[in-house]
Amino acid sequence: MSEYNVAIVGATGAVGSRMIEMVSESKLHVKSLKLLASKRSAGTKLKYKDQELTVEETTPDSFAGIDLALFSAGGSVSKKFAPEAIKRGAVVVDNTSAFRMDPEVPLVVPEVNSEALAEHHGLIANPNCSTIQMVMSLEPIRERYGLSRVIVTTMQAVSGAGNRAIKETLDESRAYLDGEDYKPEVLPVKGDKKHYQQAFNVLPQIDVFEDDGYTHEEWKMIHETKKIMCGGDMDSNDIQVTATCTRVPVPIAHSESVYFEVLDKNANVAGIQEAISQFDGDVLQDDPDHQIYPQAINAAGKRDTFVGRIRPDQENKGAFHLWNVSDNLLKGAAWNSVEIAEYLDRMDLLHVK
Amino acid sequence: MSEYNVAIVGATGAVGSRMIEMVSESKLHVKSLKLLASKRSAGTKLKYKDQELTVEETTPDSFAGIDLALFSAGGSVSKKFAPEAIKRGAVVVDNTSAFRMDPEVPLVVPEVNSEALAEHHGLIANPNCSTIQMVMSLEPIRERYGLSRVIVTTMQAVSGAGNRAIKETLDESRAYLDGEDYKPEVLPVKGDKKHYQQAFNVLPQIDVFEDDGYTHEEWKMIHETKKIMCGGDMDSNDIQVTATCTRVPVPIAHSESVYFEVLDKNANVAGIQEAISQFDGDVLQDDPDHQIYPQAINAAGKRDTFVGRIRPDQENKGAFHLWNVSDNLLKGAAWNSVEIAEYLDRMDLLHVK
Repeated sequence: MSEYNVAIVGATGAVGSRMIEMVSESKLHVKSLKLLASKRSAGTKLKYKDQELTVEETTPDSFAGIDLALFSAGGSVSKKFAPEAIKRGAVVVDNTSAFRMDPEVPLVVPEVNSEALAEHHGLIANPNCSTIQMVMSLEPIRERYGLSRVIVTTMQAVSGAGNRAIKETLDESRAYLDGEDYKPEVLPVKGDKKHYQQAFNVLPQIDVFEDDGYTHEEWKMIHETKKIMCGGDMDSNDIQVTATCTRVPVPIAHSESVYFEVLDKNANVAGIQEAISQFDGDVLQDDPDHQIYPQAINAAGKRDTFVGRIRPDQENKGAFHLWNVSDNLLKGAAWNSVEIAEYLDRMDLLHVK
Repeated sequence: MSEYNVAIVGATGAVGSRMIEMVSESKLHVKSLKLLASKRSAGTKLKYKDQELTVEETTPDSFAGIDLALFSAGGSVSKKFAPEAIKRGAVVVDNTSAFRMDPEVPLVVPEVNSEALAEHHGLIANPNCSTIQMVMSLEPIRERYGLSRVIVTTMQAVSGAGNRAIKETLDESRAYLDGEDYKPEVLPVKGDKKHYQQAFNVLPQIDVFEDDGYTHEEWKMIHETKKIMCGGDMDSNDIQVTATCTRVPVPIAHSESVYFEVLDKNANVAGIQEAISQFDGDVLQDDPDHQIYPQAINAAGKRDTFVGRIRPDQENKGAFHLWNVSDNLLKGAAWNSVEIAEYLDRMDLLHVK
């Protein structure tokens, strides 16, 4: 069994800290772990198992001797350093959007399209958090009944915008309760012009707006879903997808209201429930009589995608609703990345060809 | 011009207090206002204009001499006392679900179907809050392009469950921030078996579950929308409607992600925006370039329905998204009820035939 020298780039972030946790619990044989971040964060000490590791500044030479590099420090960092890591022999699993739509780069949710890993050239992209939990809940349905159309509305947690967004929402909530003023500087989008109150409010903006009126987050859900579920055929209209993404004052775990149409018009709720309950990584929580349905507060800290509230559209045969919830920092980011590495290891693909 | 003796039943509730405010600002000539509630709340003193009024216990004889009775004290109170009020010559505007689906009772959003008021027999039903703001945003589109299908996901404010739900959510939020335990007893549904944390969480349950897996709130959105928009023809499949209703930790104002299909496949975003901006009671807030879109914190305290984020489904001609937000206690309840009374007065219908 192979042993790996692992690096985490962006180790001090909301996802980075979960990556450390996921690596420490992983089935991978980790020979060494190196924590990398920006110059500003260098010197920070972080726990890994029973060790205290010191965060180092990311440089090209940081990757000498590294077998696996997990990136989650923003698209520009990935664009700059991922090629340096690959050049030095590391396989990169990138949790930013930098390379996701590159036709040469596999975009992978292991339970859904692990076969795409075989095509990697040193870099595998981790999809967007909101996309991952949606395809996790739809793939078992697609396998059983075929899937033709998806209309999703998300209610996403603030941790998707990083640790500063969590702190802002909590501080702002306290200020609201105390009747004090608070000036937001992070949400809805750190780099956008205006910032709005997220505490006790819903913001229908995640990421910046595109020219067509969709946000970039909505664009990602549409195009990443097609890439993952339609085998990379980007011109495929096999599955129509459209999305509205919103942010709610929840620290961790995204919720999604998913409306979908299947090809097999004999599809039924019991069959969908069975398919989901048998799918690796999905947990069915669907018992209205006992008020059992997925909730963000219950999903936080877990690796699974929780699915419930499955019911038919009463006027359109083959159309259904479901409600899914998953920890955006784990299955939506850190766990999916480490899981990709575990699959690579198992498939003997954890090396640059 | 007629003068009216007005009564508010449920005056101490979240909606009742707004009814007092809406009556005080109304164009109606109000000769007197009587505040009614349960025995428990009798004796409470409440402000109306420059007067201090004492809340009285509701009895059949409370309605002697009353011309207009606004009910918002729960379905059982309406069922018991609305007939008594009508018997004594009052016109009842009922904000509960008690009579909404009675084919003899007009269900009215004045800007949408005021013509239905002509058919009243002493009682007019005020629709459910989440339904009202949806039909307010869809009616101008239906008028211009025809409407065939609606798929909505709501993110509703806790005030929809009353003053106790607001208090619970705020107290629970503070406990969460302080790291203290809190035992919820109201949300998601006061009368249901289990109660869950709403603070920093999303609950995909509003009202109790029906046998078909839909909640009663979802049922209301589907059937009330058809009754209001299809002229009372309940067998009509003219407009297909399906819904997912969720509760978010927001005190006031519901948000709705509405996907819809129109009949005229030449419909476009500019035409929809124009129709909405010209519709009485709607305010267009749709400028992504400047991050302008409806938000709950901005809509609270206002009577309008705010609409934005209008954009086409990129794969289905004639299909669009919109995002609407409105104060569930005002247009969703108290203001719509008082507005119904103003229309009745103007149409010379504020009397029992």
